[in-house]
Amino acid sequence: MEIVRTGPRKRFTGISRLYPMDTAIGTLRVIEDAEILVEGKHIVWVGKRGEGMGPIEGEERIEMSGVICTPGWIDAHTHLIWAGSRQNEFRARLQGQSYLDIARAGGGIMSTVRAVRQTDTSKLIAEGRHRLERMLGYGITTLEAKSGYGLSTDAEIKILRAIRALHEEGPQEISATFLGAHTVPTEYKHDRASYVSLVCEEMLPAVAEAGLADACDVFVEEGAFTLQEARRILQRGLDLGLQSRLHADQLSSGGGAELAAEMGALSADHLEEISPTGIQKMAEARVTACLIPGSTFCLRQHRYAPARAMIDAGMQIALATDLNPGTTCSESLPFLGTLACLQMGLLPEEVLYAVTVGAAHALGRADQIGRIAVGYQADLAFFAAPDIDYLFYHYAVLHTQSVYKHGRKVWPSSP
Amino acid sequence: MEIVRTGPRKRFTGISRLYPMDTAIGTLRVIEDAEILVEGKHIVWVGKRGEGMGPIEGEERIEMSGVICTPGWIDAHTHLIWAGSRQNEFRARLQGQSYLDIARAGGGIMSTVRAVRQTDTSKLIAEGRHRLERMLGYGITTLEAKSGYGLSTDAEIKILRAIRALHEEGPQEISATFLGAHTVPTEYKHDRASYVSLVCEEMLPAVAEAGLADACDVFVEEGAFTLQEARRILQRGLDLGLQSRLHADQLSSGGGAELAAEMGALSADHLEEISPTGIQKMAEARVTACLIPGSTFCLRQHRYAPARAMIDAGMQIALATDLNPGTTCSESLPFLGTLACLQMGLLPEEVLYAVTVGAAHALGRADQIGRIAVGYQADLAFFAAPDIDYLFYHYAVLHTQSVYKHGRKVWPSSP
Repeated sequence: MEIVRTGPRKRFTGISRLYPMDTAIGTLRVIEDAEILVEGKHIVWVGKRGEGMGPIEGEERIEMSGVICTPGWIDAHTHLIWAGSRQNEFRARLQGQSYLDIARAGGGIMSTVRAVRQTDTSKLIAEGRHRLERMLGYGITTLEAKSGYGLSTDAEIKILRAIRALHEEGPQEISATFLGAHTVPTEYKHDRASYVSLVCEEMLPAVAEAGLADACDVFVEEGAFTLQEARRILQRGLDLGLQSRLHADQLSSGGGAELAAEMGALSADHLEEISPTGIQKMAEARVTACLIPGSTFCLRQHRYAPARAMIDAGMQIALATDLNPGTTCSESLPFLGTLACLQMGLLPEEVLYAVTVGAAHALGRADQIGRIAVGYQADLAFFAAPDIDYLFYHYAVLHTQSVYKHGRKVWPSSP
Repeated sequence: MEIVRTGPRKRFTGISRLYPMDTAIGTLRVIEDAEILVEGKHIVWVGKRGEGMGPIEGEERIEMSGVICTPGWIDAHTHLIWAGSRQNEFRARLQGQSYLDIARAGGGIMSTVRAVRQTDTSKLIAEGRHRLERMLGYGITTLEAKSGYGLSTDAEIKILRAIRALHEEGPQEISATFLGAHTVPTEYKHDRASYVSLVCEEMLPAVAEAGLADACDVFVEEGAFTLQEARRILQRGLDLGLQSRLHADQLSSGGGAELAAEMGALSADHLEEISPTGIQKMAEARVTACLIPGSTFCLRQHRYAPARAMIDAGMQIALATDLNPGTTCSESLPFLGTLACLQMGLLPEEVLYAVTVGAAHALGRADQIGRIAVGYQADLAFFAAPDIDYLFYHYAVLHTQSVYKHGRKVWPSSP
């Protein structure tokens, strides 16, 4: 990897507790009274204060006593770009309607698709920017964002261009995923084969040619796409240079996890209803499981993804917001960590792993982000808290003290 | 009630949606394009823009288009004042220990009691102030706060003096509750009768004489206090002019709700395990049920309080954070509203009622706060949201636009 050493040296010093993160889940190294040296965009030293390189002229010294430091958080599954909002469906679910009831009545994904198709790119960008600012406040320095609310070639490209614009604007890096196969749009309801062909023969080549996506995702579910359709779409994506992801086994166990293993996907996400075979196959194929407790919570499902069984099987684990206008609308990855603790039985160090190293694996970037180590990007989150347990225990509030991306302070923004 | 008309007139105008709140749960009046006139500390007019009094010279006009307005929120159950933090118990619970396991091992309430006894009043005030600032950001303009981490006459008085100081400092009004009967302290473990006598014969008279509390509370539970002990303590409080509250039926059904009805308590709180008889008796006695979904969530209990059955029985309902260092540590009453929706099946308008009118009942102040109506205090919360459903749907983040207490802007604080 290229380490850019230009730019000023920064010394973050006196950090109460620093969590550098290791490559395996379940262990947690802590450095007390720690120091990080950054040159340009990268970390050049990390360790106990006073044990590394001495000061050089012109370096910036940043006192961080009383705060803890983790790698910048990574949100490996979002639907960042949308228009409109769907609090009416939140109410409908409280009144007893199911996800599929709502979708069949013309709500759900299609209601957002109608809104997005009518919204111009600049407005989509403005709404996405507002969400990114909020995410930054929670320490999220890198994320994945999907299309999937366009479902026509033009509208899918419009969303991916909005994602690209926000990535270029920064400060967050955004990995783009094409999700033309989010649902079969109403106009193809009676001719789904034609829609799958449109995705494979028109959308995917257009997206790939424009270089607008890193990965291709399919929602495998009753009411969405079958395994056979998903295999065809993902294979076409692979042929065009796009890695695979899946929305799998969310509402029913449909073999999505097994397909993710078969396709060598970067990640399979949701997995509330994953089968024991699915766990084994994903572990063997080293596909990252992206946990989405927020959707389980908001859909009032009783069963969360079996995170403990996944960890025991040696699976790579990420944890994501799934930020979207329908099923789970929150940018607070720390709160979703609390939910993962309380509802999935994860320990705080497992949550922290899942939003750093695990999520970096889900993005295929575990050699660049997700750790505080020499050569890694200087993406850093500082919290006014005594330790990481505190972040999940004192929940649903903001503990962030400051956030750095590529060595530059990006939150709070200067007045 | 006294309406103070001195002070400048303020006109909040163009409010997209205003929720004035009615006296019964389950109905929700909405005024679009609304206006509120405030004189001094009170509301003198509310209605549709242009239908009320015209402008007068010198009035302040505050444009509120694009925001919604509710009464200032009221948190009817908090343990605002403590020292230390107990994230270690959050971890212990994730590892399988129960509330009672932790208490028996010297953790739980007693670990906070040890910390509070060693902390001076000014530090307790400073920590409490920080929490109040956070609560203000969630729109909370009035709250209840309990002692109960002192468990000696001096330490209980110290906590109540900290509450009094913060109430006098403002901006929030704080109703103080004496909770000497929070648990039997270690030093009385083998002589609980003497502790109950200490509460009745020394603490309660001292608290009442100093005028430091409005109410007296008892934690009725296995491992805490029996019904007989609670009856004696509450009766002593009533004799000294303190109204009654109970922590009741949280971990087991122990007749606490029935006792609350018998004593004519202001509120009985928690009630996860309330009996059908308890519901009936509380409804008949018009005791407010204070729901605490945060503790159910964090203690990983499977059963939430039966809120729907309570509402159907005609009970008065409040919803509170129970902010405390052990079982549920969050100031975010809006998020607890989301939890009440998803886990108790409340509708957004029922949550809003429970944090305004219902909570005002729990504080015995339903004629002064909790509604936007002529003669009520000008305690107002404004949110950047299209409607109240949105506040609970887009969860665990901050939507507050501004907060007014007694007609004065108190959040965000001026730079």
